[in-house]
Amino acid sequence: MTQLSTYEIIDKKKNGEVLSQEEIKWVIDGLMDGSVLDYQMTALLMAIFLKGMTTEETAYLTDAMIFSGKMLKFDGLNVVDKHSTGGIGDKASFILAPLAAACGVKVPMIAGRGLGFTGGTVDKIEAVPGFKTDIDLAGFERLLTDKGMVLIGQTEDIAPADKRIYALRDVTATIDSIPLITASIMSKKLAEGANGIVMDIKIGSGAFMKNKTQARKLAKSILGTAKRFDKKAVTLITNMHQPLGQAVGHSLEIIESIEVLKGNGPKDLTDLSVELAAHMVHIGGVEQTYPKALKRVKKALKDGSGLRKFEELIGNQGGDSSVINNYDILDMAPETTDICSPVTGYIKSFQNKEIGFLCTELGGGRKVKTDIIDFGVGFYFHKRLSERVKEGEPIMTIYHRKNQAEKVNMIKEKFLGEVIKFSKTKLAKPEIIYEILNN
Amino acid sequence: MTQLSTYEIIDKKKNGEVLSQEEIKWVIDGLMDGSVLDYQMTALLMAIFLKGMTTEETAYLTDAMIFSGKMLKFDGLNVVDKHSTGGIGDKASFILAPLAAACGVKVPMIAGRGLGFTGGTVDKIEAVPGFKTDIDLAGFERLLTDKGMVLIGQTEDIAPADKRIYALRDVTATIDSIPLITASIMSKKLAEGANGIVMDIKIGSGAFMKNKTQARKLAKSILGTAKRFDKKAVTLITNMHQPLGQAVGHSLEIIESIEVLKGNGPKDLTDLSVELAAHMVHIGGVEQTYPKALKRVKKALKDGSGLRKFEELIGNQGGDSSVINNYDILDMAPETTDICSPVTGYIKSFQNKEIGFLCTELGGGRKVKTDIIDFGVGFYFHKRLSERVKEGEPIMTIYHRKNQAEKVNMIKEKFLGEVIKFSKTKLAKPEIIYEILNN
Repeated sequence: MTQLSTYEIIDKKKNGEVLSQEEIKWVIDGLMDGSVLDYQMTALLMAIFLKGMTTEETAYLTDAMIFSGKMLKFDGLNVVDKHSTGGIGDKASFILAPLAAACGVKVPMIAGRGLGFTGGTVDKIEAVPGFKTDIDLAGFERLLTDKGMVLIGQTEDIAPADKRIYALRDVTATIDSIPLITASIMSKKLAEGANGIVMDIKIGSGAFMKNKTQARKLAKSILGTAKRFDKKAVTLITNMHQPLGQAVGHSLEIIESIEVLKGNGPKDLTDLSVELAAHMVHIGGVEQTYPKALKRVKKALKDGSGLRKFEELIGNQGGDSSVINNYDILDMAPETTDICSPVTGYIKSFQNKEIGFLCTELGGGRKVKTDIIDFGVGFYFHKRLSERVKEGEPIMTIYHRKNQAEKVNMIKEKFLGEVIKFSKTKLAKPEIIYEILNN
Repeated sequence: MTQLSTYEIIDKKKNGEVLSQEEIKWVIDGLMDGSVLDYQMTALLMAIFLKGMTTEETAYLTDAMIFSGKMLKFDGLNVVDKHSTGGIGDKASFILAPLAAACGVKVPMIAGRGLGFTGGTVDKIEAVPGFKTDIDLAGFERLLTDKGMVLIGQTEDIAPADKRIYALRDVTATIDSIPLITASIMSKKLAEGANGIVMDIKIGSGAFMKNKTQARKLAKSILGTAKRFDKKAVTLITNMHQPLGQAVGHSLEIIESIEVLKGNGPKDLTDLSVELAAHMVHIGGVEQTYPKALKRVKKALKDGSGLRKFEELIGNQGGDSSVINNYDILDMAPETTDICSPVTGYIKSFQNKEIGFLCTELGGGRKVKTDIIDFGVGFYFHKRLSERVKEGEPIMTIYHRKNQAEKVNMIKEKFLGEVIKFSKTKLAKPEIIYEILNN
């Protein structure tokens, strides 16, 4: 075996050459043992960003990242996970996971926390009093095997190379690289033992991906990589031009999720969650066709078995499951202020990312990693894209604390000034799902 | 003024956008004060490597690097420096600098040390017993003003950002970037107070630049940047397919330089040194036309005033100037071994870089920065490119120590196996200077 060198590997990628499995593994191992330095890694990441990676290289990178940590295996179990590229008000996991689990899919969830304009699944579920997300890998395995469903936070045991690499990408403008995103997602999903992945790729003003072309590239990369690992995958390209559902904010989103499971939720969130769950049931092999899987998920929603699964999940992880019937146990900001329409017309657009930032301004998110989140604040949207509003009619309600008058005024101004745009003429209802691709 | 961010600056360059002077200055200042981290800098360097920089950006980078340290000014003086991209056996500085100085040009030299296959001007001059190169900037200024010529090693006072950036480029495969090379060279030359620059860009098997296209790009970048700073510059693209002159090795190169100044040196080295010196005399304004400058330099060579200037330089900096007439004061390896031609024919090619590495093998160079150089070892070439050799005739002599029999055998094998190639048919004499461009 010839001696590998970090310099030569960077040089190769810089010249647009294809790296071998051995070379990629050597870099990732080196990053973890300190022989590849951070400032070499960032140069390589930039070269990867600008010169790309083949599906084969992406799979090798994924593989090397998996083996930087532990790898769980659940042979013979229908273990299917879902990943979302993230968006405003995205609480679909709390709905699709119980629905899929109610149908017999094992759902392992290792989720993230919020920062900046994005909320985090782990933060949101912690709005339920007592819910524990810092469970170790042994506990994770036991809960998944015994209970069929588990939701924990990121752990150093699963693909630790991803955490190192992500931190470097985050400060060097190399986040939005298709092969790097793919390896980051897939290494975590495969290491946690998923045999199938359903991926929700969001596009729009509140999403990471800006358009369908970009989203399709990521979809194909994810599908190709999954195939190389002999895993089933489905990718959905979905609408993030407005918040998903009507609620934005931690306690508000938990309530809305329960309402969906009770059959009373907003249509966009319900439809998307059911669709995602149905794909999980299908690729998990519980049902042999997608229509049958869809039918089964709809039944689980209707007969309340999805709701009971969510109740169980909360109980399994130390949470107060009485929340299902008693929202008063959630921390909720006592004050509400409505934002009313200045015109009669139709809602044309939302500056969706700004909605995330304004929620963070109110305390319902983190500006820096050490911030403590106020679960009780948030926004509730009465009117959505394309809907008709009359002058003076409430578009949304702000949930806030007593001493936040100034912030509330600022938020009101921002919403009416730049976040919401109106149209005088009627508009078409927005699509929820644009495209579905599978491997 | 808007708040700048390293992230945004990397992002801009990654997208191929042009950076502003403010942004470039902000990065370099940040690198020096620690607010821009090494792993951000290397990502930016890779983005610059792959996306390039305009002449304007290169000038801003040069400027920012100059102002990371002190800047000398010699108003009213004809201060002209020469830079070479480096090659095997390149000792032209020891000839052209005294010749130009003898004609009235002020020659400030801040030179480097050798590493790997390349030798360093500072190491070579230190083969002269007593010669001091660690002179501070005040001493440098005084010697240049009073004596018209000075030769010191790199100093932290001159463009310290270059040292930082170079160290990062060196381990991230971003050395061979035209704008980065340009800024590195020009920042040091301008900071040391040069009003004109003569640049020797070498191409061939022992050079950094691989072909004329690449060399022309660097030439144009250097000329354009010099023009923006209102400095005169001339670039020569020259031959590095064989060592420059017949000697490779520290003491051997000092002897050969003195021999050239005595009028007895090899033609290639003499011609190139005279040409470079003539351009210095011309752009320094000592003579108004190039032909007059050339005539004057030739006179300085013939009448021995160049030789006397070199003798003075050695004396000025504590060296034993009796070396001019007594080579015995130089450390010289006692053993010599000839490499003789295995065939009758013509010398077709030298693997020139390998010659540098083999000299280092013998101790006449550094594998790592802390190695101590053996000044006495080296190679002397009796036969050069295109020259006729008879079977059994010596091509070159190895100067080595008594205990180096094994290394000498290895070197012999390498030379006859891969370093030297022969031709049966007659070959054209190689050109020394391919092209001359000025601004």
